[in-house]
Amino acid sequence: MNASELTKLLENVRLGKTDIKTALTRLKHLPFEDVEYAHIDHHRSLRHGMPEVIYCEGKTTEQIIGIIKRMLKAGSDILATRASSAVYTAVRKLDKRAAYHTASRAISIQHKKKALTKGIVLVLTAGTSDIPVAEEAVVTAEALGSRVQTVYDVGVAGLHRILSKKDILDSARVLVVVAGMDGALPSVVGGLVDKPVIAVPTSIGYGAGFQGLAPLLTMLNSCASGVAVMNIDNGFGAGVLAHRINLLGEKS
Amino acid sequence: MNASELTKLLENVRLGKTDIKTALTRLKHLPFEDVEYAHIDHHRSLRHGMPEVIYCEGKTTEQIIGIIKRMLKAGSDILATRASSAVYTAVRKLDKRAAYHTASRAISIQHKKKALTKGIVLVLTAGTSDIPVAEEAVVTAEALGSRVQTVYDVGVAGLHRILSKKDILDSARVLVVVAGMDGALPSVVGGLVDKPVIAVPTSIGYGAGFQGLAPLLTMLNSCASGVAVMNIDNGFGAGVLAHRINLLGEKS
Amino acid sequence: MNASELTKLLENVRLGKTDIKTALTRLKHLPFEDVEYAHIDHHRSLRHGMPEVIYCEGKTTEQIIGIIKRMLKAGSDILATRASSAVYTAVRKLDKRAAYHTASRAISIQHKKKALTKGIVLVLTAGTSDIPVAEEAVVTAEALGSRVQTVYDVGVAGLHRILSKKDILDSARVLVVVAGMDGALPSVVGGLVDKPVIAVPTSIGYGAGFQGLAPLLTMLNSCASGVAVMNIDNGFGAGVLAHRINLLGEKS
Amino acid sequence: MNASELTKLLENVRLGKTDIKTALTRLKHLPFEDVEYAHIDHHRSLRHGMPEVIYCEGKTTEQIIGIIKRMLKAGSDILATRASSAVYTAVRKLDKRAAYHTASRAISIQHKKKALTKGIVLVLTAGTSDIPVAEEAVVTAEALGSRVQTVYDVGVAGLHRILSKKDILDSARVLVVVAGMDGALPSVVGGLVDKPVIAVPTSIGYGAGFQGLAPLLTMLNSCASGVAVMNIDNGFGAGVLAHRINLLGEKS
Amino acid sequence: MNASELTKLLENVRLGKTDIKTALTRLKHLPFEDVEYAHIDHHRSLRHGMPEVIYCEGKTTEQIIGIIKRMLKAGSDILATRASSAVYTAVRKLDKRAAYHTASRAISIQHKKKALTKGIVLVLTAGTSDIPVAEEAVVTAEALGSRVQTVYDVGVAGLHRILSKKDILDSARVLVVVAGMDGALPSVVGGLVDKPVIAVPTSIGYGAGFQGLAPLLTMLNSCASGVAVMNIDNGFGAGVLAHRINLLGEKS
Amino acid sequence: MNASELTKLLENVRLGKTDIKTALTRLKHLPFEDVEYAHIDHHRSLRHGMPEVIYCEGKTTEQIIGIIKRMLKAGSDILATRASSAVYTAVRKLDKRAAYHTASRAISIQHKKKALTKGIVLVLTAGTSDIPVAEEAVVTAEALGSRVQTVYDVGVAGLHRILSKKDILDSARVLVVVAGMDGALPSVVGGLVDKPVIAVPTSIGYGAGFQGLAPLLTMLNSCASGVAVMNIDNGFGAGVLAHRINLLGEKS
Amino acid sequence: MNASELTKLLENVRLGKTDIKTALTRLKHLPFEDVEYAHIDHHRSLRHGMPEVIYCEGKTTEQIIGIIKRMLKAGSDILATRASSAVYTAVRKLDKRAAYHTASRAISIQHKKKALTKGIVLVLTAGTSDIPVAEEAVVTAEALGSRVQTVYDVGVAGLHRILSKKDILDSARVLVVVAGMDGALPSVVGGLVDKPVIAVPTSIGYGAGFQGLAPLLTMLNSCASGVAVMNIDNGFGAGVLAHRINLLGEKS
Amino acid sequence: MNASELTKLLENVRLGKTDIKTALTRLKHLPFEDVEYAHIDHHRSLRHGMPEVIYCEGKTTEQIIGIIKRMLKAGSDILATRASSAVYTAVRKLDKRAAYHTASRAISIQHKKKALTKGIVLVLTAGTSDIPVAEEAVVTAEALGSRVQTVYDVGVAGLHRILSKKDILDSARVLVVVAGMDGALPSVVGGLVDKPVIAVPTSIGYGAGFQGLAPLLTMLNSCASGVAVMNIDNGFGAGVLAHRINLLGEKS
Repeated sequence: MNASELTKLLENVRLGKTDIKTALTRLKHLPFEDVEYAHIDHHRSLRHGMPEVIYCEGKTTEQIIGIIKRMLKAGSDILATRASSAVYTAVRKLDKRAAYHTASRAISIQHKKKALTKGIVLVLTAGTSDIPVAEEAVVTAEALGSRVQTVYDVGVAGLHRILSKKDILDSARVLVVVAGMDGALPSVVGGLVDKPVIAVPTSIGYGAGFQGLAPLLTMLNSCASGVAVMNIDNGFGAGVLAHRINLLGEKS
Repeated sequence: MNASELTKLLENVRLGKTDIKTALTRLKHLPFEDVEYAHIDHHRSLRHGMPEVIYCEGKTTEQIIGIIKRMLKAGSDILATRASSAVYTAVRKLDKRAAYHTASRAISIQHKKKALTKGIVLVLTAGTSDIPVAEEAVVTAEALGSRVQTVYDVGVAGLHRILSKKDILDSARVLVVVAGMDGALPSVVGGLVDKPVIAVPTSIGYGAGFQGLAPLLTMLNSCASGVAVMNIDNGFGAGVLAHRINLLGEKS
Repeated sequence: MNASELTKLLENVRLGKTDIKTALTRLKHLPFEDVEYAHIDHHRSLRHGMPEVIYCEGKTTEQIIGIIKRMLKAGSDILATRASSAVYTAVRKLDKRAAYHTASRAISIQHKKKALTKGIVLVLTAGTSDIPVAEEAVVTAEALGSRVQTVYDVGVAGLHRILSKKDILDSARVLVVVAGMDGALPSVVGGLVDKPVIAVPTSIGYGAGFQGLAPLLTMLNSCASGVAVMNIDNGFGAGVLAHRINLLGEKS
Repeated sequence: MNASELTKLLENVRLGKTDIKTALTRLKHLPFEDVEYAHIDHHRSLRHGMPEVIYCEGKTTEQIIGIIKRMLKAGSDILATRASSAVYTAVRKLDKRAAYHTASRAISIQHKKKALTKGIVLVLTAGTSDIPVAEEAVVTAEALGSRVQTVYDVGVAGLHRILSKKDILDSARVLVVVAGMDGALPSVVGGLVDKPVIAVPTSIGYGAGFQGLAPLLTMLNSCASGVAVMNIDNGFGAGVLAHRINLLGEKS
Repeated sequence: MNASELTKLLENVRLGKTDIKTALTRLKHLPFEDVEYAHIDHHRSLRHGMPEVIYCEGKTTEQIIGIIKRMLKAGSDILATRASSAVYTAVRKLDKRAAYHTASRAISIQHKKKALTKGIVLVLTAGTSDIPVAEEAVVTAEALGSRVQTVYDVGVAGLHRILSKKDILDSARVLVVVAGMDGALPSVVGGLVDKPVIAVPTSIGYGAGFQGLAPLLTMLNSCASGVAVMNIDNGFGAGVLAHRINLLGEKS
Repeated sequence: MNASELTKLLENVRLGKTDIKTALTRLKHLPFEDVEYAHIDHHRSLRHGMPEVIYCEGKTTEQIIGIIKRMLKAGSDILATRASSAVYTAVRKLDKRAAYHTASRAISIQHKKKALTKGIVLVLTAGTSDIPVAEEAVVTAEALGSRVQTVYDVGVAGLHRILSKKDILDSARVLVVVAGMDGALPSVVGGLVDKPVIAVPTSIGYGAGFQGLAPLLTMLNSCASGVAVMNIDNGFGAGVLAHRINLLGEKS
Repeated sequence: MNASELTKLLENVRLGKTDIKTALTRLKHLPFEDVEYAHIDHHRSLRHGMPEVIYCEGKTTEQIIGIIKRMLKAGSDILATRASSAVYTAVRKLDKRAAYHTASRAISIQHKKKALTKGIVLVLTAGTSDIPVAEEAVVTAEALGSRVQTVYDVGVAGLHRILSKKDILDSARVLVVVAGMDGALPSVVGGLVDKPVIAVPTSIGYGAGFQGLAPLLTMLNSCASGVAVMNIDNGFGAGVLAHRINLLGEKS
Repeated sequence: MNASELTKLLENVRLGKTDIKTALTRLKHLPFEDVEYAHIDHHRSLRHGMPEVIYCEGKTTEQIIGIIKRMLKAGSDILATRASSAVYTAVRKLDKRAAYHTASRAISIQHKKKALTKGIVLVLTAGTSDIPVAEEAVVTAEALGSRVQTVYDVGVAGLHRILSKKDILDSARVLVVVAGMDGALPSVVGGLVDKPVIAVPTSIGYGAGFQGLAPLLTMLNSCASGVAVMNIDNGFGAGVLAHRINLLGEKS
């Protein structure tokens, strides 16, 4: 039942064409019967303040192009994650504004430049190999409108590296800490700041790293309180959450 | 090397009593040699905006009482988690203001009533058995100064329960979602709101729940973006993080 | 918004007291704003054809008694699983009709004897130690109204035992096969019948049985097609599902 | 000992050519000594009401063609799952009627069109990437003779999608719910219907999804009662079980 | 259908009272319809050359006594494993001949002393704590009639201990090697002898021993070929298998 | 110290050239100081009654050829497992007698045909896909001198298949049962025979089969006593053990 | 064959009583036939420079007392780990010199005070709850003769704590770092020193700590090179290894 | 703040240009604000006595060349591990002195030949396939300046192999024991020597070896005390630790 049908029902009630008992019955199950007024894309944009994001892994180029076309027509900005360069070539053909973020393998199309937040999302990595995951968080948070800074390769085995960044750490409103191997950086960062810390384990490592299980467990057991954890390699999710948290500081 | 010693060293340099090379050597390793100015309790309170919290599991009553005495003397508020009622009896003897939060097994002592935040931390549970973990989050966030609301027993197998709470969901600044068994509630809540969602898996369940592993994995793989995860049964950590996020909205 | 409030709104529309646009707005979000008409117990009973079941593990006797009182007042039948004999004593004091099923540790109260289905739910176990889980399925399916038969201790290491029951196997409409240790019985049973087979792994065993993980994996990998699996020791769930499947054959 | 040999033995008994003691001895071990009368394909077809299905993974094209030839000669319908397009090309050369179901990678040959059931098997997926597994269930159930409907991409992070399908959910006799990542959809669906729900976890996801372990555990721990679980990606098994359950409603 | 019923059927065929087609139908499904001639206890004893063994874990004293009574009446020897001393007291009251093997917690009753095999089953342990599991193998193999020798506490961290037993190793027909912790002994023993080696991991150890998982994996990956592995702590199974292998050498 | 050196030392003692104390010192540490007399290949052949076997996985063709050359020169028979056809081509160039066992990917060279054992090693598989692992056992046992019979594709989902082979089962001296997926066949076979059963799990399956973990656990937890388990896909080890057991029956 | 027997053999060779071939045969297998000269306790003490240590877990008080009596008679120092206070009471009755180390639950008896090493073994813990494991390392290393220092409760969430101990860190010859929960301390310490670091994970923590699995994996994946890991809670092993390493610096 | 800036500050204090309070403020946060004096490479070299090592896995050739260039300019020796031959070709073009260690896939460049230690690092492997990991340890320890010896293919299934190397074992100052499959060699070696033993599990094996998990657990549970464990396949880390331990014996 969409809005016009609902209007019609109510008019019929007013006009006496439909008796109240009949209307009551139909309305009782309304939520379950009708979401015509809740079109997927628009609804999500309204609910979440962000457009739908396309996760490309396991989708064909045709499917991705099809979805992007439909979204562009609807005036939506585009963010497509884990896209191959082949996908990018196809998207680029569709729309010249498409940008490819090589490290994170993300594609973005923005209709107009957004005003960025005053608050800063700070994205850190323990090692160089963690950068692709970090960049996914960066591209995502920026696409949503957050100002982002990055500090890479400051793992705990050389503590002076992270300690020398104390000022930058203090200036951030929310921090995304990306680490593979021992995943110890979020515990150290979490002890240095009083802001929300989002930890992202990566699959970087080998042997008993078990494709990211080791840093995932490390982070879940962080002795620094107030550290929350994302799925392994989930830079995208960290970017979304960081932006949502960042927005809270903008609001007033 | 504390502040006065440092002053003395600089004075000696000025007076020519210590040559620059000697001073240089001592100063090079300064950060590693001296934290007298960074007294544990005060420092943390400054850094994190929260007093040290005592995790009672595996500590003797004597140790806990010892720590609380030292902290009270320093004028600090007290929050002790996972405390048995026996511990409470002992703490109560020490300080009449001590309150025991039975469900969460937490003890708190507050020197003066805090002004609470305007923003609301909303704590939800999927089932009744998840409440003790949720209450640990509640007690923690309140002890830190957050206004907290709770909605319990709204698991996804009876969707109308959570759907009927849409208004409360929308009014919260940050949400803590506590669930055992299938751990599906955060995915549903994450799809309904545009605020940060902190998911806490509990060890509630049996068999292939594997003491909370099942809801932990569910939450890490949440199809709702922007959901971060705490350790199993870690209501305390969720309370800390929720408060930190909540504070961001207060600040301006 | 409950039924009477909804009626009132519709009456106001008819009377012209409320204009359509205002009504429209309220109704649009109806499912999210109001479940007063969907009282938990009654709603579930309508939706699922079965009363709410009380899982006693981790609830205090007081909580259990409280819930049962409320349900009895509502005229509902009672099924409480994993209840200690202490809980039973308390329930018995409340209602003389309460029956305790020792093997499965379930309590049931029925207002009037149900007519049982024609179709048979057959519950089998591989060993004697699997019987408590099997009995939970039996009590549940019977409480819901299914006719149940049982064949116990027919594990595959002595094949003649299950082969001798071919007639009973063929007479069932749906089969629940309960097994611990190697969990091989559902594969054998699944190859002998053309009816739905519900496999329930139990935590019976030791060592590399890993509290039921071994039979769980065995059953998930059953080489007999058409076998579905429940959680370890979840006799209750198997009873519910078996009854639902059984009902399909009654319906016409 | 096949049927004709058995007949001969009985005739010899009748004619007095074989004394009873000798016959007794041979017959005592009959099941163990002779399955000539129980030819693999025919026997299964009789027992299970479905032809043997060829699981192609790990078989050479030659082996597959060999099996299909033998089955076609026996007049059997063909269903071959997880077949590459190369295998299809070879099968197509053998028999022009062969159809290839691209999404599910299944090949089917049917001698004559089957009358479909009145009852509906409803197959749902949480995401687009789960469709291949769902289609395996669809092709299987249809090949066996069930009427199938599908509702795809209705994951719980956008609840309105599944809520809008309430009518279709209610019209089904049995539901197959396919989901990867958090695997939460079966819990929600299980709470909305009173029919048997078969949950199929998929290997869709990454990181802590552990190739389908996460949704598998979610589903095994579903807080909705009456949900049974198949192996990861086992659309075929779900199709078989759904059909068997569906048939129960046809029978009278 | 038992032997007399079968005789009767054949007689009726001979007498022409039953026509061949009818007899054929009944006989076709014989194995599935009748195991009256295969009484559980006797059948197993015939098939396996060993009486049924009672696994006491999880059975009540009443159940155990009931089973033993029935078996004694049938003239069977008794072996009951993992029995508490309380159970023994009860069994002893039943039959004075009952012996309790304290280390292995096994009870045995033998009607007459068996002649032991010439061949030797050699049972070794890596440590002192592994002895209870080893003794379960010893008691079992002896109860079945094997001559058993034992060499305990010869773990690989002090190699000279096992090396000094070379003669005993060489004299055995089959070896049972019991080890917890690193589970390395079977690899060393397997390299020293040319006889079958049965490895039994124990749950002895702590931490990353994971209740026997570590030695289990070690043994499964033994670099000595010809080593087979039992479940963790399964001394009973090792005793049975060792006896069966031992018997092969006796037979001619 | 090799045999000739040792002889010389003893001669020197006899001749009085070396005093006893000196000789004593050298001999005390003999085992640790000298294995020149224990040349790897010969020693193993003496100890184990079988030549060294070459596991090709992870060795270069050059390494494999080098080892085979050295062994052929020593007059040893050759068995090389998990060899690619490329390796075979190279071996064939070296020695025309080389045979390649395609299914098991094994290469064998035998100097003269061995007399086979009277006793039979019976190798069974649950499915067709388990055959390569089974064939590795077959080739190994035959190369060592055992008479081998095979029964393939007799999985428990179609019980009549294994039941019809009762005679062959009874005729074997030792049985190797190879199965993937649910790994249930060894439990059934173990209940039908009174001979040693060696169970070999395979990595055949998908999803929750976890590359052979499922059948491995099933077999370790077999409810049939006297079943021992090899590593996943370890047909070679099963062949060695089966031969060793088989030899016991030949010996007298 | 002990030394006197060996002497006798050699004398017989010299005297011509035993011919060389016979002697050769006996000597060839010497290491395997005789370890009478390698008495367990003395041999280990010679080989390892440390007395045998008694691991009390799972031994009865009688067994422990028996072993200690035998060792005391042999003049050996005593170290018994994981001993209950009940065991201590019994040991104390045996020998007044017995000392009980409450935190580590270790008992030691030393015949005379050892001269300690110059080099320092430094034992650190992340938290207070890790101290019992640390103390086991301390007691062990001291019993063996190492000088030990301790720095407790310096986890990485409050970095200033470990940084302030830079001097002590630099003064140690080998470091034992004990940590539960996230297990991050060894990575930080490993980055601050150039000495060997032995990491000991503890079972301290809850939920996804999985009884020490989390810190174990963290430490195995340490991004600081040169960190080796002990079993969970294995303070004893760390003490032994630290002492052995420490001794290397003493030796010249 | 680097050394020259720090000197300048001190000079200004001496000259009275900067007052003490201002200097104090700057110095208080020195470690956190400035690591210019702690240039990554130099600092590490000072702290750890070893140059930074480049782990090539997951870095592009360009990145690796860039890092090497920067390090060569700084006069640093080069060690690059897990480098493909393609990377080597590029490095070789950059610097003719570059050597490629094929087995370990490591590249090294040394400015001048180092004097090696007197003490010996002994590296052992259980099998031939473990050699690549062992060689990584060898190359690393040698690049750092240790004298290294190797003993390969001395697994415990043929004990005489390791026993014959007793002299070499005794001559080593520290031992690195590399093993896959059952990982039993470190337990045996640890029982034969009184020196530190570093165990390195490898991913060699199959099936229940689980990519090195089996030998990892074996080693963590070693019954020989004083054995520490590295990550699976981490030859590099073992080389670093062995060198550090080795150096302790050189120092005096």
